[in-house]
Amino acid sequence: MKKFEERTIASETLYNGKIIELRVDDVELPDGKRAKRELIKHPGAVAIIAITDQNELVLVEQFRKALERSIIEIPAGKIEPGEDPEKTAIRELEEETGYRANEFTYVQSFATSPGFADEIIHLYLARSLEKVENPAAGDEDEFINLQECTIEETEEMMKDGRIFDAKTAFAVLFLKELLKK
Amino acid sequence: MKKFEERTIASETLYNGKIIELRVDDVELPDGKRAKRELIKHPGAVAIIAITDQNELVLVEQFRKALERSIIEIPAGKIEPGEDPEKTAIRELEEETGYRANEFTYVQSFATSPGFADEIIHLYLARSLEKVENPAAGDEDEFINLQECTIEETEEMMKDGRIFDAKTAFAVLFLKELLKK
Repeated sequence: MKKFEERTIASETLYNGKIIELRVDDVELPDGKRAKRELIKHPGAVAIIAITDQNELVLVEQFRKALERSIIEIPAGKIEPGEDPEKTAIRELEEETGYRANEFTYVQSFATSPGFADEIIHLYLARSLEKVENPAAGDEDEFINLQECTIEETEEMMKDGRIFDAKTAFAVLFLKELLKK
Repeated sequence: MKKFEERTIASETLYNGKIIELRVDDVELPDGKRAKRELIKHPGAVAIIAITDQNELVLVEQFRKALERSIIEIPAGKIEPGEDPEKTAIRELEEETGYRANEFTYVQSFATSPGFADEIIHLYLARSLEKVENPAAGDEDEFINLQECTIEETEEMMKDGRIFDAKTAFAVLFLKELLKK
């Protein structure tokens, strides 16, 4: 299987921000030609498919500036430097939803936008949930609305666009599959 | 349902590239405090869940500079300015795979990274495929390996990381669901 590697000729960091970094690379293509690649570096994130004992999916509504609207997503958050993704996931679930899970398992990792970004999301499944008495507080610039929805409700929300992001769309199909078993 | 809107106080474009644009916004949060939002503007993309008459998923292997490796994905491509997403999808399917579909239907749209990017992927389902005699050529900086895989093979590829992006992970679950019916 040929790997079509693109060799880096030059690399320039144009922005180094709080969350993302912008880099433009000059690359040599497999045929010897040159091309530019605009690349975003991101610390990576986790997301949690949290299911209540009533088989409802735990969701958070949040304003997303990039989209200029609120959308409804599974709980998620960025990985802090050096933090183990599973710890991030346990922390984010508590901060965003007030839940702790007695069953916590790794599901899958994927890149969200491999065409320009290195962001990878690690997905976890949380079951046997318990409300924490005094949950850890989340980021102070996060404003979140919590809700718990049946699989039928989440499918409706996918259709009308309230659910509108890749990880949550994956979670809805994953849950549907899981509940069939 | 509160929308938690973040009002833009100031907006600065720091990079305007061939594919992406980087903007940093100062926003006012619902509690009156201020925050910075690092935002990537992207033209949007399409992706195609193309299924052969043998119920195999059409996949392309491609080197992704952002990840510094090759991954196996469903066919996809950026929307050209003013182009109708369905036309983009028909064009990309032909360019990347040499297939034209007699059945072409819209499935779903989702944002890939709503935390920092406005990229939206429009997903289409292509069935009743036919090989085109002289397919249109793709981008000259794209090097692609075509393959067709059963649902069991794609699940194996998700497990071992050859399939490693959100849209293709969604497509695998979608196909599994579809073939059950």
